[in-house]
Amino acid sequence: MVEWFDDLKVGMRFKSAALTVSKDDIIRFATEYDPQPYHLDDEAAKKTMLGGLAASGWHTAAIAMRLATDARPFGPHPLLGAGVDDLRWLLPVRPGDTLYLEGVVTELVPSRSKPQGIARVKWTAYNQKGEAVYTFNPIAIVPSRPK
Amino acid sequence: MVEWFDDLKVGMRFKSAALTVSKDDIIRFATEYDPQPYHLDDEAAKKTMLGGLAASGWHTAAIAMRLATDARPFGPHPLLGAGVDDLRWLLPVRPGDTLYLEGVVTELVPSRSKPQGIARVKWTAYNQKGEAVYTFNPIAIVPSRPK
Repeated sequence: MVEWFDDLKVGMRFKSAALTVSKDDIIRFATEYDPQPYHLDDEAAKKTMLGGLAASGWHTAAIAMRLATDARPFGPHPLLGAGVDDLRWLLPVRPGDTLYLEGVVTELVPSRSKPQGIARVKWTAYNQKGEAVYTFNPIAIVPSRPK
Repeated sequence: MVEWFDDLKVGMRFKSAALTVSKDDIIRFATEYDPQPYHLDDEAAKKTMLGGLAASGWHTAAIAMRLATDARPFGPHPLLGAGVDDLRWLLPVRPGDTLYLEGVVTELVPSRSKPQGIARVKWTAYNQKGEAVYTFNPIAIVPSRPK
């Protein structure tokens, strides 16, 4: 069981629960944070490069964060990130899509000065067809086991 | 005035309007997308590395997207991103903070096959004290002027 930075190993895998995104969710998020035609209106969205209503990429990112927190990759420790690399939106997320997240530990760097380390987990969100729709690699700070 | 990819120049700068983040906003976003103690409860947040209630980093990211859409860096064209590099949370965003965004065009790569290009804008969000709190560099697709 993962409890501290020391318990993580490169190659360790995580899988989240699933979450379904409704059309109402997509429009509500976009109205507040990303009010563009792709995300607000079926007819207007059809005329865009996305070819129909799709979630804001930042909505997908927020949902993925929710799935990651629920997956508890660092056991009792919350997720705290200094940043994210390689954030990519791979496919549109459509109304009714059900997303889940898989993660793999790619790098572990203990701090030289603090009782913690940087854990890199490459997370990928998949839809109900098993298509990868989104990926991101946060810089997570995880406490080390007290000596 | 920027209307098409061809009108953008490296070094061109943008500045957004400002937006104030309330405690209620922070808790509402976090409850749905990032339910961790830093973002939900004053007393619990004081005991964390963030030293008090702070917005979810993904909330800051969503607010920055809203500010970027309002800044209309690509004139009439909406913002469409394939991904983001160098996303970094630099300082906590606190209840009552007022954020604005500045952007600078860092790279412009015309597509070889499509009438469009990739515009890289390095965006930085500042608070009311002028402190940089967040930065990100999206991969934006912008249509070229029809020939």
